[in-house]
Amino acid sequence: MNERKKTRVVILGGGFGGVYTAMHLEKLQKKHKDLEIILVNKENYFVYQPMLAEVVGGSLGILDTVSSLRRLLPKTTLYIREIQAIDTANKTITLAPQFSHTSLDIAYDHLVLSLGTVTDFRGLSGIHEHALPFKNLADTLVIRNRIIDAIESAAIESNPKLKQELLTFVIGGGGFSGTEVVAEVNDFARRMAKDYPTIDKNEVKVILVHSKKRLMDIELSESLGNYAGEILQKRGVEIRFGLRLSSATPQEAILSNGEKIPCKTVISTVPSSPNPLMDSLDLPKEKGKVIADQQMQVKDQNNIWAIGDCSLIPAPSGDGYCPATAQFAIRQAKVLAYNITASLTNAEKKTFTFKGLGMMGALGHHRAVAELFGSIKFSGIFAWMMWRAVYWIKLPGMGRKIKVMLSWLLEMIVPTEAVQLKIQPTQGIVQLHYETGEIIFHEGDIGDYLYIIVDGKVQVLKGKDEKICTLSKGEYFGEMALLSKGERSATVQCIEPTNVLALRKRDFGLLISNFDELKRNFESTDQARREKHA
Amino acid sequence: MNERKKTRVVILGGGFGGVYTAMHLEKLQKKHKDLEIILVNKENYFVYQPMLAEVVGGSLGILDTVSSLRRLLPKTTLYIREIQAIDTANKTITLAPQFSHTSLDIAYDHLVLSLGTVTDFRGLSGIHEHALPFKNLADTLVIRNRIIDAIESAAIESNPKLKQELLTFVIGGGGFSGTEVVAEVNDFARRMAKDYPTIDKNEVKVILVHSKKRLMDIELSESLGNYAGEILQKRGVEIRFGLRLSSATPQEAILSNGEKIPCKTVISTVPSSPNPLMDSLDLPKEKGKVIADQQMQVKDQNNIWAIGDCSLIPAPSGDGYCPATAQFAIRQAKVLAYNITASLTNAEKKTFTFKGLGMMGALGHHRAVAELFGSIKFSGIFAWMMWRAVYWIKLPGMGRKIKVMLSWLLEMIVPTEAVQLKIQPTQGIVQLHYETGEIIFHEGDIGDYLYIIVDGKVQVLKGKDEKICTLSKGEYFGEMALLSKGERSATVQCIEPTNVLALRKRDFGLLISNFDELKRNFESTDQARREKHA
Repeated sequence: MNERKKTRVVILGGGFGGVYTAMHLEKLQKKHKDLEIILVNKENYFVYQPMLAEVVGGSLGILDTVSSLRRLLPKTTLYIREIQAIDTANKTITLAPQFSHTSLDIAYDHLVLSLGTVTDFRGLSGIHEHALPFKNLADTLVIRNRIIDAIESAAIESNPKLKQELLTFVIGGGGFSGTEVVAEVNDFARRMAKDYPTIDKNEVKVILVHSKKRLMDIELSESLGNYAGEILQKRGVEIRFGLRLSSATPQEAILSNGEKIPCKTVISTVPSSPNPLMDSLDLPKEKGKVIADQQMQVKDQNNIWAIGDCSLIPAPSGDGYCPATAQFAIRQAKVLAYNITASLTNAEKKTFTFKGLGMMGALGHHRAVAELFGSIKFSGIFAWMMWRAVYWIKLPGMGRKIKVMLSWLLEMIVPTEAVQLKIQPTQGIVQLHYETGEIIFHEGDIGDYLYIIVDGKVQVLKGKDEKICTLSKGEYFGEMALLSKGERSATVQCIEPTNVLALRKRDFGLLISNFDELKRNFESTDQARREKHA
Repeated sequence: MNERKKTRVVILGGGFGGVYTAMHLEKLQKKHKDLEIILVNKENYFVYQPMLAEVVGGSLGILDTVSSLRRLLPKTTLYIREIQAIDTANKTITLAPQFSHTSLDIAYDHLVLSLGTVTDFRGLSGIHEHALPFKNLADTLVIRNRIIDAIESAAIESNPKLKQELLTFVIGGGGFSGTEVVAEVNDFARRMAKDYPTIDKNEVKVILVHSKKRLMDIELSESLGNYAGEILQKRGVEIRFGLRLSSATPQEAILSNGEKIPCKTVISTVPSSPNPLMDSLDLPKEKGKVIADQQMQVKDQNNIWAIGDCSLIPAPSGDGYCPATAQFAIRQAKVLAYNITASLTNAEKKTFTFKGLGMMGALGHHRAVAELFGSIKFSGIFAWMMWRAVYWIKLPGMGRKIKVMLSWLLEMIVPTEAVQLKIQPTQGIVQLHYETGEIIFHEGDIGDYLYIIVDGKVQVLKGKDEKICTLSKGEYFGEMALLSKGERSATVQCIEPTNVLALRKRDFGLLISNFDELKRNFESTDQARREKHA
């Protein structure tokens, strides 16, 4: 560890909490010249989360919602890496390797935890494998690409059942982000469908599944929540209240009442969990979030601070904790930054007193709902204009402001084009979940994957009714068509809820042709199966 | 096969040749109402290739270079799919499955081959694994993200050797696209480096390797080619003439004279090959390209036509074949479309007579070279303005024109931000190439991959000099650190040029924990190795 003369503040995470803390610390550097600010984030940009849903529908360009961290924080040292470990005993952060196999350590004097939340579908069988999350910029693009792919496929699909599956979009979760996403998905899919002569606009089905009795029940009053629901329903969204998304397969979404909705696209905006890095921290926590006081300091820690979504900070209103919104994180940041400098000079720390201004939610094109100071309520196009105005004013950086304004103006003149942005091949190994009775593949299908059973049970069928065998955990199937480059010689159907790993043909080929032991293994199984089934 | 009353023209490929043929056929539909036009492409957009290099440097937004095929071709039926097979005997095109396991057949009366070329690094050991291609929109983004990643990593790298590797960019091929890419990479990397206090602009090394004596030797005259080279050199590009990129590893680029350049980024713009789909076609070919006549008709085929990069069409000048440029493809398309309708009415076909207007090449910010009508030559900022003007005029669609113009104007006001666009996790199984003497990993490194040897030989070393064993084709290593979740217990060094498959820790974990036979296999090997090395 080299000798450091300055006091080093290391901020983990580049969301609203982290970035605004760094901004305020940069300002305070004028008085406290011995302050060194470091921010660690896995991307070199800050995402303006409130506008993310607009990227799905294409109202905003892909990069319009992001700002370069380096431009926003000229006096902060940035480390653009994944965080591997946080060691509070030795006051050290370890970053994951990139371009090499060695990790990197950063020592700190003060630590700011602003890690936000992550999508966590673990343990949600089916959801984990088949639902698309909506959390970050990449998610937004994946959702957009999926909608386009599904509609393109539907346009040339002759099987009416498959066509309807392709045109059905199921979204789980009717909180703020769920509502914004469903509005954008609905607008986008219906607008897009107009360009396809083989698709009737009414074939598009967008279904929102929400566990409560009205939308945005936590965030908004009853009347506004109801109004939001009505607007969406008028635009063609089906809302299933009082139900949850309980599972999904490659062919359907399954609701908590057992209802099955045949579809190819499932999006889930719930649940999000604290960053897994927090698990290992020996700090006071509740539901995985770090408990801090109204000075933003973690209990019994004089050099660890927490802010935003990953923290629980007592609400100045006295009612529970501060809500996990940008509005609060931005204001917490100012107090936090001041308090760090106060702790350096033993000055008195400030207490967080902000009680919130209100809430707004966008509902797609030209509609929004808003509630200010707990009593003033807006809805409709005026709320939407206010929504845009407020977020636009808060956008960091003049360059970004100009770009976003131009995008919005341009959208009025030049209609948005539904072009995809295919970047990378799909992953080598994917996990799939199937329900009892579902067919993984049919005899005669193209052999494109090898499957390994993680748990559950399948039966292998030939011809009309001939049952060849059943297979279960740890066994594999589908290798015959891959080895012989032909069609599937049998049908595989699940007789229990089944999870499988699917290995793409190309990757299977790579492994099998280079990995001697595996090859012998597959060949002997293949031969045995052929002899048995002959 | 359903009864079709109309004459169906199926166009394969949505590049300049295919899209412009469909455009002209749409116009001719007014006279020939019994014409049905189908275009098959794997993306639902048309990429304006000449402007692609600008995306690397961020002068143009990611989607500014693409246009929706559906908007461009309102009367054409689009099939957005991968093509699986072309069967000229049965006049049928088979499309690959998507969202299901069944493929889709399209019958045709007339077939237009406009499949262009694809990047083909097969057989180029090292290049295939480690060089980034520059061909389509996705490639452009991958290159852009790589440059940003490398500079971000260099900014926090304390090892000076690794830092210089990260800041060195090697580009193979000094034809048109290679020169445009090197100009953009050089401008972008140097501009970006300015924002990083820990990077000196002069640490950035951009090296262009070109087999001939001057740049763009095929496309431009000697004086302009030389001028282009001088401009790039003034801007800091090192050019190695008379050499080729012969291989690459994760640590270096290797030139044809054996010289090794330590670097983390290698881009290759050569070679491109005809689409592999063409291989199976029983048509007259030369170097994989289909030979057609000046009516664009394939020899001895009355219903198969070819255009653009995938074809060889005799040049009207009498000198060889038409060059593979947009300029020619656009004009060929008009003749081709007319000739299809002429063949329906037995009218006389037209002959392609266009001899070319000249060539232009952009050299990054505010510089270009141009040569018109074989004699008029321009260079510098005037050529650059002309370059922009000409391509802008040719951009299809007014919406696109407005957007590109705005991007260019905006670029003057708001400086481009170097933000990445990370979309998907890296692939599960990657192929890597190493040269003799290179270290795959060191003892004590983090265990992040399992390696399987495709060919070559490695030695496993412990401590200072203790040689444990050698491993070769079909054997694997690196599993010990993965199974025990620890650090590498030995160093692995190549004693021959070696190709390996690397399986990510996560995917290895998935396979091993679910695939019983594999698990037993690894565990017994692991135990044997531990006992042996203990």
